[in-house]
Amino acid sequence: MPRLSLIPPREFERVATAGLDPDARLELLADMCRLNALVAVKRAGSGHLGSTFSSLDLVVHLLWENLNVAEVGFDAPDRDVFFSSKGHDVPGLYAALNALGVIPTERLLRLRRLGGLDGHPDVGVPGIEANSGSLGMGISKARGIAWAKRHLGRGGRVVVMTGDGELQEGQNWEALQAAAHQRVGRLLVVVDRNELQSDRATEEILALESLEAKLRAFGSRVVTCDGHDHTALRHAFAKLWEHGEGSPGVLVARTIKGKGVSFMEHPRALADGGGTYRWHAGAPSDDDFEAAVAELEGRIRERIDGFGLAPLVLELVPALEHERPATLQGEPESGAGMPSPAPAPLVTEEYVAAAYGEALLELAAREPRLVVLDADLASDCRVRAFELAEPERFVENGIAEQDMVSMAAGMARHGLLPVVNSFASFLASRANEQIYNQASEKTKVIYALHYAGLVPAGPGKSHQSLRDASLLTAIPGIIVVHPSSGAETRALVEWAVLESTMSVAIRLAIGPSPRRIELPADYRPSPGVGMTLRAGADAMLVSYGPVMLHECLTAAELLDERGVRAAVVAMPWLDRVDPTWLAETMSGVRELLVVEDHAPVGALGDTLRRALGELDDPPTLDVVGVEGWPACGTPAEALRHHGLDGASLAERIAVSAPGRASA
Amino acid sequence: MPRLSLIPPREFERVATAGLDPDARLELLADMCRLNALVAVKRAGSGHLGSTFSSLDLVVHLLWENLNVAEVGFDAPDRDVFFSSKGHDVPGLYAALNALGVIPTERLLRLRRLGGLDGHPDVGVPGIEANSGSLGMGISKARGIAWAKRHLGRGGRVVVMTGDGELQEGQNWEALQAAAHQRVGRLLVVVDRNELQSDRATEEILALESLEAKLRAFGSRVVTCDGHDHTALRHAFAKLWEHGEGSPGVLVARTIKGKGVSFMEHPRALADGGGTYRWHAGAPSDDDFEAAVAELEGRIRERIDGFGLAPLVLELVPALEHERPATLQGEPESGAGMPSPAPAPLVTEEYVAAAYGEALLELAAREPRLVVLDADLASDCRVRAFELAEPERFVENGIAEQDMVSMAAGMARHGLLPVVNSFASFLASRANEQIYNQASEKTKVIYALHYAGLVPAGPGKSHQSLRDASLLTAIPGIIVVHPSSGAETRALVEWAVLESTMSVAIRLAIGPSPRRIELPADYRPSPGVGMTLRAGADAMLVSYGPVMLHECLTAAELLDERGVRAAVVAMPWLDRVDPTWLAETMSGVRELLVVEDHAPVGALGDTLRRALGELDDPPTLDVVGVEGWPACGTPAEALRHHGLDGASLAERIAVSAPGRASA
Repeated sequence: MPRLSLIPPREFERVATAGLDPDARLELLADMCRLNALVAVKRAGSGHLGSTFSSLDLVVHLLWENLNVAEVGFDAPDRDVFFSSKGHDVPGLYAALNALGVIPTERLLRLRRLGGLDGHPDVGVPGIEANSGSLGMGISKARGIAWAKRHLGRGGRVVVMTGDGELQEGQNWEALQAAAHQRVGRLLVVVDRNELQSDRATEEILALESLEAKLRAFGSRVVTCDGHDHTALRHAFAKLWEHGEGSPGVLVARTIKGKGVSFMEHPRALADGGGTYRWHAGAPSDDDFEAAVAELEGRIRERIDGFGLAPLVLELVPALEHERPATLQGEPESGAGMPSPAPAPLVTEEYVAAAYGEALLELAAREPRLVVLDADLASDCRVRAFELAEPERFVENGIAEQDMVSMAAGMARHGLLPVVNSFASFLASRANEQIYNQASEKTKVIYALHYAGLVPAGPGKSHQSLRDASLLTAIPGIIVVHPSSGAETRALVEWAVLESTMSVAIRLAIGPSPRRIELPADYRPSPGVGMTLRAGADAMLVSYGPVMLHECLTAAELLDERGVRAAVVAMPWLDRVDPTWLAETMSGVRELLVVEDHAPVGALGDTLRRALGELDDPPTLDVVGVEGWPACGTPAEALRHHGLDGASLAERIAVSAPGRASA
Repeated sequence: MPRLSLIPPREFERVATAGLDPDARLELLADMCRLNALVAVKRAGSGHLGSTFSSLDLVVHLLWENLNVAEVGFDAPDRDVFFSSKGHDVPGLYAALNALGVIPTERLLRLRRLGGLDGHPDVGVPGIEANSGSLGMGISKARGIAWAKRHLGRGGRVVVMTGDGELQEGQNWEALQAAAHQRVGRLLVVVDRNELQSDRATEEILALESLEAKLRAFGSRVVTCDGHDHTALRHAFAKLWEHGEGSPGVLVARTIKGKGVSFMEHPRALADGGGTYRWHAGAPSDDDFEAAVAELEGRIRERIDGFGLAPLVLELVPALEHERPATLQGEPESGAGMPSPAPAPLVTEEYVAAAYGEALLELAAREPRLVVLDADLASDCRVRAFELAEPERFVENGIAEQDMVSMAAGMARHGLLPVVNSFASFLASRANEQIYNQASEKTKVIYALHYAGLVPAGPGKSHQSLRDASLLTAIPGIIVVHPSSGAETRALVEWAVLESTMSVAIRLAIGPSPRRIELPADYRPSPGVGMTLRAGADAMLVSYGPVMLHECLTAAELLDERGVRAAVVAMPWLDRVDPTWLAETMSGVRELLVVEDHAPVGALGDTLRRALGELDDPPTLDVVGVEGWPACGTPAEALRHHGLDGASLAERIAVSAPGRASA
């Protein structure tokens, strides 16, 4: 990690009150926020710089010039409300709130760390007005806030920023039509029209143009301007607020993704990446970071000098104690193009998601009916290789999970075998009713639930998926599995494609496997049958997936040192148990600890509890999972917080078996 | 039930092949379908006549003139595909398919009966191409079908019909933008623009106009015409198919809801109903039925005579054996304005949903923060009285559940207490991620999950909600309750509004209570505490809600006759159990049968299993719920089919306790 320096709040205050030309002042403040956001993301090890940078002129313009919050405070009932619906641009907002004295610097330096700042907005942080991160909800929420203000006779206006790719989500259009009909007033939508979504152009993924025509047809008053030109922004906001009591105003702000750092700027960066934008998510390498800092800091210093002000004073950021890469479990989103920090101990080169992508590609030749659908996460979901190799069998649906699932349902009814990809938190939840509808037609669709489970824990609760098994468990005709290694992933994908007669939901860890879980050489998937990874007479841990099985094995190793022999069983079938296997494996076991990479309800624990009732002498069953809201932090922090790290699991077993533990 | 007569398929064949003027032929066939659909709905006791009638000219035009299915058959890979996304207009399609010889008459006469025809489309029925009924999925599915046809080199085109109110669902706009971008081709959307949604005008609920401008902005080629004028339709279809390989075509067919029966036609019917359209759902009274038949049959006969054909020959429909009203548990949807058939034995005048509506209205005075949101089901959700009494505290969001929930989230963040209403199957599923997002802000919102449970079972699986508890169970900060009587509903609504610190989801039966469940006089809700309705030492049944508790009490009464004394416990808290109450109530109980008005997973059974593990000597636990897809039929048929009627429950207990049962 290079040495990091931040611009302290007093420097922002100095610049803001120096009597500069209004536009120059805002441009400078925006660049200063960019620098601090860059440092915070570098320190966090991940974050979304591209749209943080595209949106920052807008954020700064609103907070320093247009809205009343800096004046009346973020708790005042009459305050103007601003929030970002896309949410992943929050490092820029954090930097701005730090500059305004709302968020302390120590907290800014704990971005994506336990007790610090969530990777996506959370209202527990001062100045954050709405939880976001899952796309498309913001306009609805903003309208609710504006309605409440009007109903309660409170002052203040409401501004919500959306991405442009985000507008592919249908909820936006529900919200806009209602905004036009309900005429709530004092409501403004700002579209950060940077022309890119995760790593490709919106017009390539799913064209938005003419966006203005769509917005107008839905009853909005629309103004388009350059989102980095503060004079244009000033006029645009004035015009849009003019008739603020009627139909909603929408500002389409034409921006540049990566704005402010030349090699991150669209379109150059897209060309440099061979058609892939590399700066959507993740943290830059040390070299890229230094280059970006040099460019930003250089320009800031030059301008400050040019205005005749005293030189900029930066503050060196103290190194974290026991500093370690925050991305122990890998890049959270679209980080494929980013150089990774050095792997921590016990992190392997294996990614189950990569094995999934390879298996799909290999199966394309064996199953001609196979087609793959994506909702703008092709890199993260490891289906880009399939897209390139089999373009005729790949469908890009944009950020529209419901549409993707129902499209797959139609394909399945007419002779195809669709494999549907998104993050588990979006796919199983946003498209839940569509999955139910598909299953009710008794066709077969495979749902790849990527980024299932607690880690990486940096992006926060909008992205961590700890409910997906519970969301599918009561749908007839769907099997839910969660493989623990690359080999098991390949075997289960093959089984799902070639053998299963039912629809299959495959939960997949997104990061590297902490250790390689070895399968028996003759392993073949058999519904409801798990595998004993390690024998042991004193207790039994049952889990699934590379992350939690690693913790279980670690726990067993720690227990060994205390003379407790714990068995570890991998059970990839979360919603069914083979009774013969169960009787063979668990008869005579006294204590069973199920370790969930899920909430403690609605997954394997409940399934085993139902099944164990059939045994003559069932073991006592203890279930530990992610209780409450999933923690945001490093993987180690999050696992420890929820008592799911190896040491906590070992302790839990030692306490429940004190006799043996002290033996 | 009046005597019913149908027009047999051979009469359709005779008219279709008589060499009539093309338009006159299609108009006549459409009226003949209207008559048969009316008879089927009358016999079923419920159905959606208004939009069945508005859509029938379109359906007939497509099936008899435009599409190739009558010719190549409904199984041919190269067939044209037609289906309705709204789905509730399916009685008209059934009548047409019967006329074409695809559906046998005996099955048409078993609409909404077990083994007959589902209340909403199901692909298990010949000629039905897609499951629908939950709105907004159709265009996505149709695009998937068209994509599959193109990919597989199959012939045939795809036509999907949507409602107009249905277009408020955002998924439609996701699907249209993708259709324009992907240029799948051979895809046509027909909008049945009858200007009404459930019982009010679209422009009043949530304005759609200018619909054509919206559709064009989203990249569709749009033609508007009179949807009952077959010459206009012929030209419109020809024009739209002309460039069928490119962007999607949309026909906005201006139709009349209730078309063909003067007193059901919009706008007269809306005026007659004082601004409420009474013919959206339900079955007409005997008098209204006779009048509608007289009008339709008279016109059909007159036209046939006018064409110089032999007189129409109707076939008398045999009465059902043991004929009984199909609506034992009440009207399924928007039937409030319809005269009900005579109540069957053991159906009371009590509706828990009505008690809910009254409680809300009363609480408006006591809790000024209370506001009510609706998604176009205000009558069914019993919030129309609130809307009329407190218009400033009522928000109509149209058919857009996701937008409604996120709007409520915004309101809750800014000082209001929103109560959100829709059917459980839509609200808990379609808006699941939005509910999670709201809960993550740690605000309080009340979710009224109407039409929760198995009955009424006529509408079928798109409407029956057997998963909603499982969908919410893993969200921190939400309590799920299911009251069993009007008094308990009032108490729980009051508790939710005035006392609960968490968000509350209230599952509500939509039909009349089969019997009145009496609460102790001093009843006050206490989280996790149930009530013993009936003591008994031999077994214990635990359930919730008026429907299943009635079956449990019936089972206990039947067991009495066999000398088995069964206790019955009402447990309205589906996701938590008070350990003291549990120990007091269930210690020493040998056998516990949990009866779920839900799938057997993800609800009370799983909750109790988790809690019982803490008892020293836990009872054996048996859980019965709605296994597999919920049956469509009368309440009695559906309950029996799933083994949830009193007699089946009694048998289940007698078998598991044979010693006592024979004692």
